[in-house]
Amino acid sequence: MEVLAALNLGDFAQAFTKVGLFPVFDLAYYIVSILYLKYEPGSVEVSRRSPVASWLCAMLYCFGSYIVADILLGGSPLDYFQHNSHILLASAVWYLIFYCPLNLFYKCVAFLPVKLVLVALKEVVRARKIAAGVHHAHHAYHHGFFIMVIIGYVKGSGVALISNFEQLLRGVWRPETNEILNMSFPTKASLYGAILFTLQEAHWLPVSKSTLILIFTLFMATTKVWMTARHSHGSPFALIESWVCHLLFGSPLGSEDNHHHHPPAAAPSSPLKTKEELSDGTRKRKAKKAE
Amino acid sequence: MEVLAALNLGDFAQAFTKVGLFPVFDLAYYIVSILYLKYEPGSVEVSRRSPVASWLCAMLYCFGSYIVADILLGGSPLDYFQHNSHILLASAVWYLIFYCPLNLFYKCVAFLPVKLVLVALKEVVRARKIAAGVHHAHHAYHHGFFIMVIIGYVKGSGVALISNFEQLLRGVWRPETNEILNMSFPTKASLYGAILFTLQEAHWLPVSKSTLILIFTLFMATTKVWMTARHSHGSPFALIESWVCHLLFGSPLGSEDNHHHHPPAAAPSSPLKTKEELSDGTRKRKAKKAE
Amino acid sequence: MEVLAALNLGDFAQAFTKVGLFPVFDLAYYIVSILYLKYEPGSVEVSRRSPVASWLCAMLYCFGSYIVADILLGGSPLDYFQHNSHILLASAVWYLIFYCPLNLFYKCVAFLPVKLVLVALKEVVRARKIAAGVHHAHHAYHHGFFIMVIIGYVKGSGVALISNFEQLLRGVWRPETNEILNMSFPTKASLYGAILFTLQEAHWLPVSKSTLILIFTLFMATTKVWMTARHSHGSPFALIESWVCHLLFGSPLGSEDNHHHHPPAAAPSSPLKTKEELSDGTRKRKAKKAE
Repeated sequence: MEVLAALNLGDFAQAFTKVGLFPVFDLAYYIVSILYLKYEPGSVEVSRRSPVASWLCAMLYCFGSYIVADILLGGSPLDYFQHNSHILLASAVWYLIFYCPLNLFYKCVAFLPVKLVLVALKEVVRARKIAAGVHHAHHAYHHGFFIMVIIGYVKGSGVALISNFEQLLRGVWRPETNEILNMSFPTKASLYGAILFTLQEAHWLPVSKSTLILIFTLFMATTKVWMTARHSHGSPFALIESWVCHLLFGSPLGSEDNHHHHPPAAAPSSPLKTKEELSDGTRKRKAKKAE
Repeated sequence: MEVLAALNLGDFAQAFTKVGLFPVFDLAYYIVSILYLKYEPGSVEVSRRSPVASWLCAMLYCFGSYIVADILLGGSPLDYFQHNSHILLASAVWYLIFYCPLNLFYKCVAFLPVKLVLVALKEVVRARKIAAGVHHAHHAYHHGFFIMVIIGYVKGSGVALISNFEQLLRGVWRPETNEILNMSFPTKASLYGAILFTLQEAHWLPVSKSTLILIFTLFMATTKVWMTARHSHGSPFALIESWVCHLLFGSPLGSEDNHHHHPPAAAPSSPLKTKEELSDGTRKRKAKKAE
Repeated sequence: MEVLAALNLGDFAQAFTKVGLFPVFDLAYYIVSILYLKYEPGSVEVSRRSPVASWLCAMLYCFGSYIVADILLGGSPLDYFQHNSHILLASAVWYLIFYCPLNLFYKCVAFLPVKLVLVALKEVVRARKIAAGVHHAHHAYHHGFFIMVIIGYVKGSGVALISNFEQLLRGVWRPETNEILNMSFPTKASLYGAILFTLQEAHWLPVSKSTLILIFTLFMATTKVWMTARHSHGSPFALIESWVCHLLFGSPLGSEDNHHHHPPAAAPSSPLKTKEELSDGTRKRKAKKAE
């Protein structure tokens, strides 16, 4: 019975990893990414003042992971821009989200039930990207385990890792923080995912790649949907991390919880909060005000 | 008769695009570029304090377009530095402009009639660079139309697109603006030129490349000479852009004109003005003070 | 007699350049580099708050020269990360320096006699890196003398040239200075060394490469040990530089000496001092306070 179950899970996982991402999943990825761009304070003004800068930011939000990974592997940062259909689709989404009359498109996709579906679809793309990144790096450097982890990490985190420079494009400069100093949940999950996929690629993890993709996708999708629905920014890793960091790096215990329970300590320097730490509620209100 | 005229124009255009740029046109390009560097506030102090930093900035001003285009196509940013004669010529210009006794060289080339000729010659180089950039990108990515436009744009704009980082080298940091947020006339013209050359390369424009180079060169040279002579920074595209941006992106009509007519609104935050927006008169006065 | 002496020196130099750097010399390089990272204000807090950011900074300190040189030659910045043993060794040093119980490891390696030996060993690595960088660039660009100098310079200077961006990773941004505007002694020595090695590679210097490596190593090791022992940051080049810069670039004579003798002039803007200009004594005290 168990063997059968395992076989079925394996078959299902393999079928799942063979589903094409373009256009449905990619479309969801572009919509959610550019939605996050619109939540950024000041991005609506930039879209009025300089459509070129706004379009470039939108492209960084959609294709940042490809751009950074290509740079890190010594390729052309523009390599992905040869896929005209992807660029055109992302550009159409950017246009509809920022310039659609009556803000109709934005209102539709930011409507919570719709958004939850899109967020879930986006996580399917993220899991695949991490796996593809690790695989690509493995192809280039057979024993470069550090390179595999870094490329998988970058492919999963996307624009977050270069958010300082993406903001600079919009005239915003917040040097006192960055995504590596204050990792948000998706960035952390991408790092752990990249480590898992690297272990799998090195055959140190007794599980097939498609099963790992399926499990990681399910974990990410449920967690992100749950967090989006509850406007939460807590991390399911907080407790384990707190203990591990205490043991390994002597970090004070429960520092992260304190950080969340006593916001006044961090509040005066609000730019310290990264974009994904802000609850969606706050961001939406800001985005509405900006219009 | 018309056919004959067309033939003659075509022949002339082809002859024109076969004229070698080195050394006359390149020399004019280096002189005008490093002249703009000397107009930058603080650059004379930097040339006294750290000749290495000043030389690097001068190289970015002269070869920035090659460096950025090489990075974007995944090549070596230093690739162009293998042309020792070009580097030596640009270095000689840098030395003469910054350290010539009695500031003689600077006074000669900044003398308006001389400068107008040099500015016109510089635009010949710009037009060729855009065409070469689009052609190079077309060679690497046959259907990468976005890549062609971006590479042409970068080749035409040169150091302007990385001015934030060029300033950083001189210890200046102005994150609140950049050349994409506030495009100057040459940057805009490079973008439109890159789009035209891409359309030509894709055979969607019924005109030969040499004719397009000739027309674009004539347009740029006359406009820039006119603007330099009148110390103007208005853009001939302003009216059309204003209407197109209003229709497509909902930008308020005539915003750019207001920006120019009511400077007090922008005046308190003077760093918002990009270097090419400042009239040459102001810059010259600043450069003189600095000495 | 003299011929014999020359032969012996040549033999010794050749034997010296054949000694493997891994693991002893590399270990010393990693220890001294990460020691300098710990001296940086705020780096201990970062190591507690975000071990990932701290590890990345440590890697930049250890492998920054490879990363920048790979970028400049159009390769993958992660290329060196395929050497797992080097990365693991550097990571172990990072862990021991930042998280060793009772700070034991730090106290051992920061103990002056130990440190002097490590500093001397580090300079052996620096000299070899410059020679290897120039040789590598020569292989890629046979007549690219500027490229050879730049790559040798970058290989010798390491993280210093990208210190602005390394600091940004730790949430620190000091745009008013950089290593090119205010070159420290090792950076200057790397530049002069890169020029010498380029002249040697172009056969304009009548000396074998191994002899040049030996002489440069001896010069650097004695100078750095002397400077570390005396907590000094003066440069042995100051006098010659002052005269050459006065003649060539019109810099005011003796400006550098004044800078050192009358610190009040520079004191209010303390961030202007680069990290290697601060005496080790000051840094140690700061590092101790931070714990």
